[in-house]
Amino acid sequence: MLSRSTISWLRALQQKKNRDAEKVFMVEGEKGVLDGLSAGLPCIGLYATGKFIKENELSIPPNLEVIEASPSDLERAGTFETNKAAIAIFQQYKQPENATPVAGANLYLDQVKDPGNLGTIVRLADWYGLLQVFLSPGCVDFYNPKTIAATMGSFAHVLPVKVTENWLAENMQSNTIGADMQGLNLHQFTFPKIFILVMGNESHGLSEEAQKQVKHTIAIPRFGHAESLNVAMATGIILDNWKRQQTT
Amino acid sequence: MLSRSTISWLRALQQKKNRDAEKVFMVEGEKGVLDGLSAGLPCIGLYATGKFIKENELSIPPNLEVIEASPSDLERAGTFETNKAAIAIFQQYKQPENATPVAGANLYLDQVKDPGNLGTIVRLADWYGLLQVFLSPGCVDFYNPKTIAATMGSFAHVLPVKVTENWLAENMQSNTIGADMQGLNLHQFTFPKIFILVMGNESHGLSEEAQKQVKHTIAIPRFGHAESLNVAMATGIILDNWKRQQTT
Repeated sequence: MLSRSTISWLRALQQKKNRDAEKVFMVEGEKGVLDGLSAGLPCIGLYATGKFIKENELSIPPNLEVIEASPSDLERAGTFETNKAAIAIFQQYKQPENATPVAGANLYLDQVKDPGNLGTIVRLADWYGLLQVFLSPGCVDFYNPKTIAATMGSFAHVLPVKVTENWLAENMQSNTIGADMQGLNLHQFTFPKIFILVMGNESHGLSEEAQKQVKHTIAIPRFGHAESLNVAMATGIILDNWKRQQTT
Repeated sequence: MLSRSTISWLRALQQKKNRDAEKVFMVEGEKGVLDGLSAGLPCIGLYATGKFIKENELSIPPNLEVIEASPSDLERAGTFETNKAAIAIFQQYKQPENATPVAGANLYLDQVKDPGNLGTIVRLADWYGLLQVFLSPGCVDFYNPKTIAATMGSFAHVLPVKVTENWLAENMQSNTIGADMQGLNLHQFTFPKIFILVMGNESHGLSEEAQKQVKHTIAIPRFGHAESLNVAMATGIILDNWKRQQTT
């Protein structure tokens, strides 16, 4: 059983300021916790049901103290409505000293505000083999419990790189590609060997600052009446087109 | 101001059995209501704020009686947390007598259970120009308020066609394509001129019945570690590949 002070500490980590003060974040549920552990993320606390501990003995690092918790403890301490498995507290990623674009696609999110969208985009980045996502100031927190849940475990494979507003201007000016409804037809677009793909805010699209830096804009061709696609959906379709072009 | 009996009638329509008994459904919010009206869906009730009525006079059919309602009325009667615009009650679509595949892509959803996923898929169908979606027994209700909201207005452009479990067996046996992680590489697949694309349940994938009918399976190639993609995301990426092949 978890002590009141442990539960209250875990609950406090639902707030960004507390997570950031301790440089940690919370992962809830069987899949997420196991994904974090098996990726080798540094774990500083594991609270789990007896069943989870028994079934996953080999996945739990030997030097990690595990505290047994009931489902109702886990549900009180975390954000999941039901959690019959575990909560783990991991250290936040260290920010790289140089946030440098790599070969291929570099994904820059420009004030993406919805944690579900950010999490879905991280999952997509992982699917298409991107090792990092660049986050503008004003993006929702990568470590928000809803973001972490929406990544479906991909938080453990994709590095969130927080960059300043100048980052776009300082990098890759000639190969910066923004997604925009008025852009070139994605199906006819040839991706450069190295580029930054800029995806904008859910309601407002690309910010003024991003628009200034973007050298090409691309659009997913539309054949019917829907007014738009969600930013995560658009990211998935664009990354798929890029990979298709690169590999076939 | 809405009467108590009106509010209680509207609230009752949040339940499938009540919607189906009256063959109607509820649309909430400015965009959805205007999309339904401008598509010409038969509207049998409109409850709207004075501001909405004033600003959208030309969009409201002249013979439709509009009942003025406060935002708090709309929020009490509907499911939206905030609604400063309107609620409309539309007639449900008539089921076509023959649920027949058309040229191009026909989308069949096999026990898709989440209203957000169904709504997102309807929005995608609309984006890629599909005029109908075929729904297996066991799919979540098209008229669920969460489904309608997730369509972002596309409920007004896409006909939901409810079919029986035998429908796949009775149609297009040779060109039935299922999405499955073990399938052929989507990027190398040539779509037939007419086909049924079968998308399975969120947790269980294709049902046994659907697996029996499917003649090809296709998979979105993966380049990283994510275990899966959400069914709506997969639908979007597959439809984009189909349209790309068809038009470029």
